[in-house]
Amino acid sequence: MLTRIDHVGIACRDLAAKIEFYTSTFGLAVVSEETNAEQGVKEAMLAVGETAAGTSYVQLLEPLHPDTPVGRFIERRGEGVHHIGYGVADIESAMAAMSAAGLRLLDSRPRHGSMGASIAFLHPADIGGVLTELVQFPLIDPLQAGQE
Amino acid sequence: MLTRIDHVGIACRDLAAKIEFYTSTFGLAVVSEETNAEQGVKEAMLAVGETAAGTSYVQLLEPLHPDTPVGRFIERRGEGVHHIGYGVADIESAMAAMSAAGLRLLDSRPRHGSMGASIAFLHPADIGGVLTELVQFPLIDPLQAGQE
Repeated sequence: MLTRIDHVGIACRDLAAKIEFYTSTFGLAVVSEETNAEQGVKEAMLAVGETAAGTSYVQLLEPLHPDTPVGRFIERRGEGVHHIGYGVADIESAMAAMSAAGLRLLDSRPRHGSMGASIAFLHPADIGGVLTELVQFPLIDPLQAGQE
Repeated sequence: MLTRIDHVGIACRDLAAKIEFYTSTFGLAVVSEETNAEQGVKEAMLAVGETAAGTSYVQLLEPLHPDTPVGRFIERRGEGVHHIGYGVADIESAMAAMSAAGLRLLDSRPRHGSMGASIAFLHPADIGGVLTELVQFPLIDPLQAGQE
């Protein structure tokens, strides 16, 4: 069902500072930066390893306002790991399977995630406190497309 | 420096129940189960995708006693993501580079991690609240060796 660790989503207060840290200290490269108003974040995706099923990323998330999911997370728990995103081949069938297994979906249909992906979140209370995201990348990998 | 997401370390109260969940609901396979008395945990490694630099895993961690790092984590924050492990090609040179960059190492020399890996932890306060582990796998991948 899960094809890879797509990304680790990390909540931070200062996106620019964290990008500087992860690129200079850990040697990662920024692949994409975008603002997702629906999720209330500005974010960066940094590539960290290729898998057969796609790239893995560190996703750095800065809340656009305190009263957003990531803003409330930081207020409550401080900066740190916010969620884990796993790759799936077909998000609609994965969502149906999770729902059939009794897991609560936070999204009733796939929505727009980073870099054109289709995503859906599962309720962390059903997964041992881990906010878990399913990620289906578009058939054309943005990284590959960018190299053509 | 970082070659891949080696694993996501997830703290849980009941390892057997979480193994059942991750295998039956998410379709992951247990690759290894072991007890690490030094770290005060019993744990399971579940494969989730192959990278060019090695396998990625979900690592499920149950504390052996409440008064252990993972036990105190659960007491303080509940079950959830405990740390992120990244692959490195050479752990001693990676530790030297991190130290030179001003990061505090929680281990002064590599120690024994899951499945024969050499590991070292970095102080989460230096990395935006993320307990971060460096992982160098032995030259013979246990998964590959097991298939011979």
